[in-house]
Amino acid sequence: MSKIGFIGLGRMGKPMAANLCQKGFELVVMDLNPDAVQDLQRLGASAGSTVAQIARDCAIVVTMLPSSIEVEQVALGADGIFANAAAGSLLLDMSTIDPLATDRLQAEALRRGMSVVDAPVGRLAEHADRGESLFMVGASKTDFARVKPLLDAMGTTVYHCGDVGAGGRTKLVNNYVAVTLCQVNAEALALSQRFGLDITSTLQVLYGTSASNGQLRMNFPNKVLAGDTTPGFTIDLAHKDMSLVIGAAHAARVPMPVAAAVYESFSLARASEYGRIDFSGIADAVCDLARIERPRVPKGWVAG
Amino acid sequence: MSKIGFIGLGRMGKPMAANLCQKGFELVVMDLNPDAVQDLQRLGASAGSTVAQIARDCAIVVTMLPSSIEVEQVALGADGIFANAAAGSLLLDMSTIDPLATDRLQAEALRRGMSVVDAPVGRLAEHADRGESLFMVGASKTDFARVKPLLDAMGTTVYHCGDVGAGGRTKLVNNYVAVTLCQVNAEALALSQRFGLDITSTLQVLYGTSASNGQLRMNFPNKVLAGDTTPGFTIDLAHKDMSLVIGAAHAARVPMPVAAAVYESFSLARASEYGRIDFSGIADAVCDLARIERPRVPKGWVAG
Amino acid sequence: MSKIGFIGLGRMGKPMAANLCQKGFELVVMDLNPDAVQDLQRLGASAGSTVAQIARDCAIVVTMLPSSIEVEQVALGADGIFANAAAGSLLLDMSTIDPLATDRLQAEALRRGMSVVDAPVGRLAEHADRGESLFMVGASKTDFARVKPLLDAMGTTVYHCGDVGAGGRTKLVNNYVAVTLCQVNAEALALSQRFGLDITSTLQVLYGTSASNGQLRMNFPNKVLAGDTTPGFTIDLAHKDMSLVIGAAHAARVPMPVAAAVYESFSLARASEYGRIDFSGIADAVCDLARIERPRVPKGWVAG
Amino acid sequence: MSKIGFIGLGRMGKPMAANLCQKGFELVVMDLNPDAVQDLQRLGASAGSTVAQIARDCAIVVTMLPSSIEVEQVALGADGIFANAAAGSLLLDMSTIDPLATDRLQAEALRRGMSVVDAPVGRLAEHADRGESLFMVGASKTDFARVKPLLDAMGTTVYHCGDVGAGGRTKLVNNYVAVTLCQVNAEALALSQRFGLDITSTLQVLYGTSASNGQLRMNFPNKVLAGDTTPGFTIDLAHKDMSLVIGAAHAARVPMPVAAAVYESFSLARASEYGRIDFSGIADAVCDLARIERPRVPKGWVAG
Repeated sequence: MSKIGFIGLGRMGKPMAANLCQKGFELVVMDLNPDAVQDLQRLGASAGSTVAQIARDCAIVVTMLPSSIEVEQVALGADGIFANAAAGSLLLDMSTIDPLATDRLQAEALRRGMSVVDAPVGRLAEHADRGESLFMVGASKTDFARVKPLLDAMGTTVYHCGDVGAGGRTKLVNNYVAVTLCQVNAEALALSQRFGLDITSTLQVLYGTSASNGQLRMNFPNKVLAGDTTPGFTIDLAHKDMSLVIGAAHAARVPMPVAAAVYESFSLARASEYGRIDFSGIADAVCDLARIERPRVPKGWVAG
Repeated sequence: MSKIGFIGLGRMGKPMAANLCQKGFELVVMDLNPDAVQDLQRLGASAGSTVAQIARDCAIVVTMLPSSIEVEQVALGADGIFANAAAGSLLLDMSTIDPLATDRLQAEALRRGMSVVDAPVGRLAEHADRGESLFMVGASKTDFARVKPLLDAMGTTVYHCGDVGAGGRTKLVNNYVAVTLCQVNAEALALSQRFGLDITSTLQVLYGTSASNGQLRMNFPNKVLAGDTTPGFTIDLAHKDMSLVIGAAHAARVPMPVAAAVYESFSLARASEYGRIDFSGIADAVCDLARIERPRVPKGWVAG
Repeated sequence: MSKIGFIGLGRMGKPMAANLCQKGFELVVMDLNPDAVQDLQRLGASAGSTVAQIARDCAIVVTMLPSSIEVEQVALGADGIFANAAAGSLLLDMSTIDPLATDRLQAEALRRGMSVVDAPVGRLAEHADRGESLFMVGASKTDFARVKPLLDAMGTTVYHCGDVGAGGRTKLVNNYVAVTLCQVNAEALALSQRFGLDITSTLQVLYGTSASNGQLRMNFPNKVLAGDTTPGFTIDLAHKDMSLVIGAAHAARVPMPVAAAVYESFSLARASEYGRIDFSGIADAVCDLARIERPRVPKGWVAG
Repeated sequence: MSKIGFIGLGRMGKPMAANLCQKGFELVVMDLNPDAVQDLQRLGASAGSTVAQIARDCAIVVTMLPSSIEVEQVALGADGIFANAAAGSLLLDMSTIDPLATDRLQAEALRRGMSVVDAPVGRLAEHADRGESLFMVGASKTDFARVKPLLDAMGTTVYHCGDVGAGGRTKLVNNYVAVTLCQVNAEALALSQRFGLDITSTLQVLYGTSASNGQLRMNFPNKVLAGDTTPGFTIDLAHKDMSLVIGAAHAARVPMPVAAAVYESFSLARASEYGRIDFSGIADAVCDLARIERPRVPKGWVAG
């Protein structure tokens, strides 16, 4: 089995790379943070010297970077992946980026006889730690088969969503709904609080009707409603994803008035210094700004 | 067992009254539509001549009427329920109305030594037909015990949400979320369609994450996504409920920017003549107005 | 000249009635507040004992009341204006109310051979003090001629907008724009502040382009931008007018997404205790909530 | 007087360059479209061969390009302006771009002992034709003095808004308000139409109160209300400017819920194929989508 390049060892990238190492893949890693690189070396990875060298040595290079700017810097240009990789190489980009950037990468890859797979990550950092991530993959059938073993080593759920670009696009659709549910629940619970309703009684009813939703069932009772807003996924990151959603929607001429309202609510929360808490914490932000008592359930509460 | 008054035999009230008859309650019914009254007479109910007479004859009177205007007309005034009922009588209002109207009714009832229970209905008309409705009840403990046998005869799920007024308020919170989910799903699916994603693949992913929600799981695949927009609950009625939500939220000083955006989207749909289709059909309205292909799944499709 | 009834001597009604007295009209006044009645008596008005008596004595009755509830209480019912006035009498309602309530009043008046004129007031309380109000009038030609002398005594600008109901509807259109301009300017100035632009320089440019608007030119520099938020017209009242706008728009199936967003911003401001300041103060509310420095110009500043 | 470089001869750039030629400036021009270059040559300009050559020959280079992508391509890189210009050179960027891109250009210029002035253009293409543009300028005092003669040759109104970056930022604030006014007026007139009010009567009132605004006074009666939606400034371009506004506001943490609602309304208009008409035409788009009769005034109508 040939070497795998892995560029980007942040909060998500590092445990993903670690899982690859631990499951027997030979990794060449790279990151601006030397500590992260050393941690991976301890698990058996080698440290890449330059992007170009990694591109020459590895038939598959994984990127897990903050935004399309960094991905394009690493992929394009004279010192980048495409200019230095052999024909037939594959770039597996797992970052969450603008889908139009993925399209540009793919066009460039095609021109050089290479290919791109976009496979952004669902679920939280703690799932990545345990190798339990979910991936939304855009790839040709052949390329999907090539990356499947890597994805299986990093996660438990792999969706092949369509051709290149379909992974990132599906993630945007999915995260639009997930983030928006936080805001919808926040407004609903703010109303319930101001009405003076018992919060557990309101939750009970919501769980029993078509109003039930993943955020309200799974995330809220364990996080914001229990008074725990340490971040699984921050309001800042949710805002970044909504930024990609809004950008892509406007580029594609899709009116999304609710998305726009959610985006502004998260902007207000960030301006009021709530950016670094868990995104379920938008319920606290909404209530605090309107001087409504925060909704809380007893620790360990489970719907009857 | 004493007689029960039942005023309002519309699409919901008639099957509810029918269930009461069939389960042995002695009903005195009233409606502007003589056919509905005759149908109930065939099931053993008697026809009331006036509201005042019903109030005199029945210790419990059920109202199931279109809006707070009709409920207040029937309850208040010289010919109304309160002016003619005996002390200790109970008004069980099952209409969906402004919670401040419920508060006014309760204040008047208290003044006369009577009481009010608000118990609006969840679920759809076809559930009411089968006696499988869900009720959100606001009542004192004693009054809850008095109405419980009636509710059990009309439905399968009864939530005691708190004191008088809590039933209607809980329904507003619940319907805000349920209606809003339709709009959120509509925007998400419009984006998915414009992205050219395979709709079943998108649904599969959404079902597997915290983006999952009751409308997307239960209502959408059987209704709009299968091309069936015959109404279980119309866009017009969803708009009416959102109107109560917005009114109550502003009276209570709860900012709800997403509710406001949803309300406008339903207003546009109504202005464009989509008002009488099922509220899941907001997905078609959103797509049609933006010239996006309607999302469809094969009939009988079930997520894998 | 016959006597004029005047019911409602609040912050606006009292100076309006005073102007009528001072310009020679013989008034019979009524208000819950005895001080206001005495003040008018000092100016020569007589105090009416009941609404019915006023209706019997006066061919024209003016109402200036908080909402449609009070107007309908005074106009309808056995003790009301219509039941006691002579045929040919005229109700001049100058309150700002739901236009559908005006339509109901007019239907009842027609049935009795009477008529209604709706003439809500533009401009501020201090204009009313000086007899410089602006009126938007809905009336038949004949009725317009009958009320014109009264309006001329209370204000300087009278618009005959169309038939009965057109006055209130025009006021809603007008106040929608005026209130919304406050929010638009608030957002623009918040952006300017966060950008670190010099506020006078920004204003200068805005005044010189098609972005110029009445609120930014006239109200803002004298009020919020000079640090003066003592109310000419409060955020609470602006919110009430937006409530009528939203209600009427939804009844008429007019989607108004910007109106909806403004309404929520004012709701947030009220929930955060900004309700009693001048409506230009929404600029401070928007900036405070987002932790942006308030925009200010030197006292007495005039655009160059 | 030294030569002036001018890169970008589109609908705005060409007449601006022509005005410079006609008023005696020695221009070296460049554009992808050879016809535009030839037109300028006929007016005495010379054609530049490469960006680098222009940078070497001209102490001031003007750029008038579609977006930050093109401006950065021309300014940065080995073949760009900065790499080839002499110390002390000045880039006068008149494009409407993301202010953060202007900041990046300025940082690079400073590093090389050069400078940047941002001077985006207000008013329409026909004003540029007549040398009657308005400019919002961000520049140091010295640099402002250097570019002032050029700006005076192209326009009639020059605002020095502050340091580098202040020009573009002021333009965003200004265009946010101008574009939003179109939407506000659209909603107001839609409401007026549905209410059945006479449109000229409504306009008359709006003009006489603080609801008056530049778009409603100047642009609307000559364009959309007279049935003329040939573009001075298209809905597509207004949408592009709103995109910059939203992007900058979110980067700066300024919540702008009305901006967000306007952006979505323009997105819906574009999805429904109204993108290429004048931005006042949003009034027609709003009315058409909601099946409301378009508001129209007689040709040549002037408020009384």
